[in-house]
Amino acid sequence: MHTLWDERFALRTDNIGSSAIREMLEFTSLPDVISFAGGMPAPEVFPIEKFKEASEVVLTEMGDRALQYGTTEGYQPLREMIARNASKYGIQISADNVLITSGSQQALDLLGRIFINRGDSVLVESPTYLGALQAWNAYGVKYVTIPFDQDGMRTDVLESRLRMRIKFIYVLPNFQNPTGVTLSRERRKQLVDVANAYGVPIVEDDPYGQLRYEGDHLPPVVVLDDEMRAKKVPIYSGNVIYTSTFSKILAPGLRLAWVVAPCEVIKKLVQAKQGCDLHTSTFTQYIAYEIANTPWMKTHILTIRKTYKERRDIMLQSLEQYMPEGVQWTHPKGGLFLWVTLPEGIDAGEIFKSAVEAKVAFVPGGSFHPLGGGENTMRLNFSNAKPDLIMEGIKRLAKVVKENIK
Amino acid sequence: MHTLWDERFALRTDNIGSSAIREMLEFTSLPDVISFAGGMPAPEVFPIEKFKEASEVVLTEMGDRALQYGTTEGYQPLREMIARNASKYGIQISADNVLITSGSQQALDLLGRIFINRGDSVLVESPTYLGALQAWNAYGVKYVTIPFDQDGMRTDVLESRLRMRIKFIYVLPNFQNPTGVTLSRERRKQLVDVANAYGVPIVEDDPYGQLRYEGDHLPPVVVLDDEMRAKKVPIYSGNVIYTSTFSKILAPGLRLAWVVAPCEVIKKLVQAKQGCDLHTSTFTQYIAYEIANTPWMKTHILTIRKTYKERRDIMLQSLEQYMPEGVQWTHPKGGLFLWVTLPEGIDAGEIFKSAVEAKVAFVPGGSFHPLGGGENTMRLNFSNAKPDLIMEGIKRLAKVVKENIK
Repeated sequence: MHTLWDERFALRTDNIGSSAIREMLEFTSLPDVISFAGGMPAPEVFPIEKFKEASEVVLTEMGDRALQYGTTEGYQPLREMIARNASKYGIQISADNVLITSGSQQALDLLGRIFINRGDSVLVESPTYLGALQAWNAYGVKYVTIPFDQDGMRTDVLESRLRMRIKFIYVLPNFQNPTGVTLSRERRKQLVDVANAYGVPIVEDDPYGQLRYEGDHLPPVVVLDDEMRAKKVPIYSGNVIYTSTFSKILAPGLRLAWVVAPCEVIKKLVQAKQGCDLHTSTFTQYIAYEIANTPWMKTHILTIRKTYKERRDIMLQSLEQYMPEGVQWTHPKGGLFLWVTLPEGIDAGEIFKSAVEAKVAFVPGGSFHPLGGGENTMRLNFSNAKPDLIMEGIKRLAKVVKENIK
Repeated sequence: MHTLWDERFALRTDNIGSSAIREMLEFTSLPDVISFAGGMPAPEVFPIEKFKEASEVVLTEMGDRALQYGTTEGYQPLREMIARNASKYGIQISADNVLITSGSQQALDLLGRIFINRGDSVLVESPTYLGALQAWNAYGVKYVTIPFDQDGMRTDVLESRLRMRIKFIYVLPNFQNPTGVTLSRERRKQLVDVANAYGVPIVEDDPYGQLRYEGDHLPPVVVLDDEMRAKKVPIYSGNVIYTSTFSKILAPGLRLAWVVAPCEVIKKLVQAKQGCDLHTSTFTQYIAYEIANTPWMKTHILTIRKTYKERRDIMLQSLEQYMPEGVQWTHPKGGLFLWVTLPEGIDAGEIFKSAVEAKVAFVPGGSFHPLGGGENTMRLNFSNAKPDLIMEGIKRLAKVVKENIK
């Protein structure tokens, strides 16, 4: 849309797209719509009493610091806690390897800022996380895509992609957004091997790693990368930049996430972040630390897992019960999403229109495909709606799908 | 510095500079150093009890929303409050004219993102706010500068600058950072007239507008711009983008600021912000609203004014008492900073080194000059140190200056 101000002042219009999801959410947030469209945590699991206690403690004992300007790198005890927790997974890092960011979205933006020159190529799964595409589009990125199957990214075709000039590989190994699929252990290993052979860094985005509802925990890609190295350095200096967030285990309203990376990458990210927002809110960092640095945190994650597992199971059962033949879906072992594939030729965008009339919403899968495709796919979120609404919503959706398949 | 990772992965190194101030602060934050270097509010004026009450209310009454994802535009009641407050200054705006940002720094970054294509020119005062330079350097900006005197930006030479192709004019009209100087009413009017005649938008950065310690309030540039228009539209749609912040009137640790602009500019900023951090912390927005939307807020601003006026006066008196002849300084009518000019040929960078040994710190003025110059200038902050330390610090600094002038 070209407006008066665009004309008068030649605002940049290139590569700043609006988020399809967020615009769509405006239509789907009406109270009588059952929405599987967003990626929102269940508000029922927000630990509100813990937040009250933490706010009281932080303001009483260290209000003068918690309300003051802080360092760009982040609150030191929080960085140290993240480094300690990472060490439990078998990777040695220090606080110098950790940057606190204003949500994962900022981590992705800053990575775009330090890596991507206009025209550079980034390798992404197709489909992949829409927020990453949105962050990097602003830097004039080009995408090279790699397909997935039920074991995640098809690492068997990775070499063919890396023969092109790729700036970095972007992967969501656990319960991927949007497909819910998990990268197998063998493929994680292969990803690390091939990326190292070609000298291409990996950006590992892991917002849901702690939200596993079945099967064994798999080592993060960054840990496998560290293991393959001759241990000459005590502090991680490998090929992977890892990012995770407090949004799904505490609350997204804090806008708190972190990056783990070699110190020299952290330094560049810090420089970039200084220009973007100086630093992340000290107040929310102090509060998150106060809550997360307790044994209670483990119990809380178990509560979230229990809640979301129940919702996932109900969604899977409802799909089984109501969806017509020819419709397929993934069986995510964790996370917030599952992925539905309609019969070839069915347009999920059309289904969406009918679905909204039937008071149920989802995200058509096309927008997660940077180079097109996936018109017959849908992303369904199962974390936000309550169990009875999930069942009712899937019933409504299945009815719409049936009518469109005929 | 070229590191292993730079070489291995060709990280971008262009135009991402580190902030001189922030790096310097690391040396000056030692407990026995009296620092006039930062721009930090006095922690003594943080309304900690109000924050406690607000946190309790927000979490008890609306915790599920205050901890959840929010809209990119910001918390609607907060936007409406800002619109209402703006109306008191005689400019009609609605919440649609307001974007909440993660600190003023993000407002500057987003403006860079929507305006600046590599090689575009921006007109700035020289000296000007370092954070703005840092934000826009990342977009490959070029600077055209305009000098100042005791009445602020020299608008009498503005036309000569606007004959060049200028993307926007950046101005801090109230108690400018770094000089402390205020743009006179006549010059505000002239700035608006000339900018409109040349069709160049103005970015008005006003973090300290409410912190005036003497003289009459002057109308913001955005208000003068609105007044000169034939009132065909009820909602502001003029030539000025205005930004201010809660950092100096509540607490910088919240990272909360706002932009007031024509709706079409807000829409572009929202799109850009989606890619940067999705939205600003809902939790801090709810809390800020809870505190700021009360009659108490006015009293609080009076308290801050009283505290800072006292500190400014003590700094001015101490300079008068201790500084040798040939040293000049501004007399700011508000804000946080004053500006010292040493005799021609004296290098403030050298003074800085001796000053740090004498346990007193400031920021050498050179870094605020985008095209060089100002080597004999210094920025002094008077809001953060307590009165007795201000006196002692100026005494130490004057001693160092005397030794270097000889």
